[in-house]
Amino acid sequence: MSVDDRVVADPVRYEVRDTGVAVLTLNRPERMNGWGGGLATTFYARLDDAEADPGVRAVVVTGSGRAFCAGADMGDLTTISAATTDAAAGTDVGKLVGARHPHFLMTMRKPVIAAINGACAGMGLTLALVCDVRFAAAGAKFTTSFARRGLIAEYGISWILPRIVGAGVALDLLLSARVFLADEAARLGLVNDVLPPEQLLPRAIAYAEDIAANCAPSSLAVIKQQVYADTMRDVFAASDHAEKLMHESMTRPDFIEGITSFFEKRPPNFPPLKEDT
Amino acid sequence: MSVDDRVVADPVRYEVRDTGVAVLTLNRPERMNGWGGGLATTFYARLDDAEADPGVRAVVVTGSGRAFCAGADMGDLTTISAATTDAAAGTDVGKLVGARHPHFLMTMRKPVIAAINGACAGMGLTLALVCDVRFAAAGAKFTTSFARRGLIAEYGISWILPRIVGAGVALDLLLSARVFLADEAARLGLVNDVLPPEQLLPRAIAYAEDIAANCAPSSLAVIKQQVYADTMRDVFAASDHAEKLMHESMTRPDFIEGITSFFEKRPPNFPPLKEDT
Amino acid sequence: MSVDDRVVADPVRYEVRDTGVAVLTLNRPERMNGWGGGLATTFYARLDDAEADPGVRAVVVTGSGRAFCAGADMGDLTTISAATTDAAAGTDVGKLVGARHPHFLMTMRKPVIAAINGACAGMGLTLALVCDVRFAAAGAKFTTSFARRGLIAEYGISWILPRIVGAGVALDLLLSARVFLADEAARLGLVNDVLPPEQLLPRAIAYAEDIAANCAPSSLAVIKQQVYADTMRDVFAASDHAEKLMHESMTRPDFIEGITSFFEKRPPNFPPLKEDT
Repeated sequence: MSVDDRVVADPVRYEVRDTGVAVLTLNRPERMNGWGGGLATTFYARLDDAEADPGVRAVVVTGSGRAFCAGADMGDLTTISAATTDAAAGTDVGKLVGARHPHFLMTMRKPVIAAINGACAGMGLTLALVCDVRFAAAGAKFTTSFARRGLIAEYGISWILPRIVGAGVALDLLLSARVFLADEAARLGLVNDVLPPEQLLPRAIAYAEDIAANCAPSSLAVIKQQVYADTMRDVFAASDHAEKLMHESMTRPDFIEGITSFFEKRPPNFPPLKEDT
Repeated sequence: MSVDDRVVADPVRYEVRDTGVAVLTLNRPERMNGWGGGLATTFYARLDDAEADPGVRAVVVTGSGRAFCAGADMGDLTTISAATTDAAAGTDVGKLVGARHPHFLMTMRKPVIAAINGACAGMGLTLALVCDVRFAAAGAKFTTSFARRGLIAEYGISWILPRIVGAGVALDLLLSARVFLADEAARLGLVNDVLPPEQLLPRAIAYAEDIAANCAPSSLAVIKQQVYADTMRDVFAASDHAEKLMHESMTRPDFIEGITSFFEKRPPNFPPLKEDT
Repeated sequence: MSVDDRVVADPVRYEVRDTGVAVLTLNRPERMNGWGGGLATTFYARLDDAEADPGVRAVVVTGSGRAFCAGADMGDLTTISAATTDAAAGTDVGKLVGARHPHFLMTMRKPVIAAINGACAGMGLTLALVCDVRFAAAGAKFTTSFARRGLIAEYGISWILPRIVGAGVALDLLLSARVFLADEAARLGLVNDVLPPEQLLPRAIAYAEDIAANCAPSSLAVIKQQVYADTMRDVFAASDHAEKLMHESMTRPDFIEGITSFFEKRPPNFPPLKEDT
């Protein structure tokens, strides 16, 4: 059996706005946008499009229907559950997750903003956490879910969750696998803000558009890489590295435009991201 | 003089409930459950019991009387203070702390929940912080206390505290050694929740019982290990490691039961933790 | 042109109180205390004075006028902007930043408390974040600002900011470079407390004086070093190191005084910091 048999048309909707923002919508609402090979493969392909498109400066990820992403597609999971008794798990898991790990989003050079419209569970939560910034709709349900399914902390969630909310909150959420709502997620620092459902996507897009209009693409690429890489550096190495990066930034047109537009009290007009930045 | 001379009967009460929860109660109320060789040795022995007992799936740690643990037993400390003038500190410190470091709790394969009933200071605070999840009674007093006694950040508190509350809060609490109350501890993220005193232990036990009833013991063991170990991994290694662990989890009965019980909309019936998980 | 040409008298005011607290005031109000070679050089020289003075036990850093530090001195930046076109950036950047990186403050043996009286932007925010504890005046404006100027996360801010507020908040603030106010800074954990403007400096000084009066200088030096260094250690190494440091602390007069004063219910009388602690 091939996972592709179950791929429906357009598992991920993709829209590029003339404001420089790409909106990716997980679009298997009848399966709560359950994560699986077909969805994942298309999702990563659209992210590649966004990364390569000079017209895209920031990316918004959301879901259609009632869920953001309710976790691994349960159809896929039961297949694996049966398959593992035949020691065939390896192959099927690959199909479930897709060719890449979620931390791929952290390696992108453009900011990714999650607009969590509804249920955000298991792999869906991991996906939301590897986005750079998160907004959630009031009432959206969250859970790590893994411990209640006999699973483990999948694909880096045990790495990123403590770095966002601290070890105490992360252990509570991962060990109990309890359900919590968007308001608590905001209070815990797991999402950056919570909004009435109808304001969620407009707010996430407006946030991305502000970045696209006012922040230098080269700055975004370098800063994003700094934040994730500095997790493994000491402060001396991080500061030395930053000094080198600062020198490089000062040779780019983005710096001249950033300073000039500031003094001229006008919006900046930054060029698109270059491949070699 | 031997520290053991001062050990009273039952320095730690130990109760295993048929719901899979062990409750350890520090029980030297007349000394504010001051940490010392006798108490520590018994405490670790009871944790060994809990870890080895297949009937225990989660552990609650609390204190009897007015304190959770008010720090190092001051009787022990004055002995050391005298002894150091004779350069005999080494031996006595070992007696004070017991044979293990508090981070032993992080290496356990079962979740440990602290129910902080009262004063939580110095080594007592370190002890609470190496538990996985913390509840506190309203009005409980907290302080790091070390800097006001001419001591240093003992036994890993300078490692774990910033990872729970961030570096800014950690430095405030460690450098000023100021007293703060449970409400502030909750606001700072140092405890997961604050409760009226009479509801503290019931809440902590109910939380542990929910984990014992609904979360797979193998998942808890693996996830706990992932969270602490991933502090020292980069996200790529963490995600690769998680993929390997996920494959392993899918070969265990816990995974089958987790998925099956979910589809059958019934509580799971996970087997006890195996030694080789 | 030499940067020194623009140095005015007293770019940093320096006051040592008989309570053991040094107050450093960035004093270029007409330039919003913009960071530059002259200011930085004097600032670090005064910090050296504070570090060397046995009468100083804690340091408060604040700004005169409307700003704490509004970032790099824009006069300097435009010079660099012009210079870079001649590939002469290297030299001028050195002049801009001064001879040291901001993380120098983390290596000091005395606590540094920031009293953020007003605008705190770019390098000014980096400076505030490498202080150990932060108080802010209500209404003070904050921004990372780098991404809007075509710059990168300068001098370790991408290292320290996530360790204070978590990765999600840090990425929001660094990627959007949005302006936020002191109240939000406190809610995000970026500052430890927010106060009415007229109470800011008194509160920061009182906090520092409490430390100076009640905390052992040797404890402060060791604990501060532990917190920053333990970011790169695993918990086992951190705890082993702490045990060694604890043994050392117990041979110092500060420990005897700390315990004795506690039992005698009187304020401690700790000796000044020794060079070899």
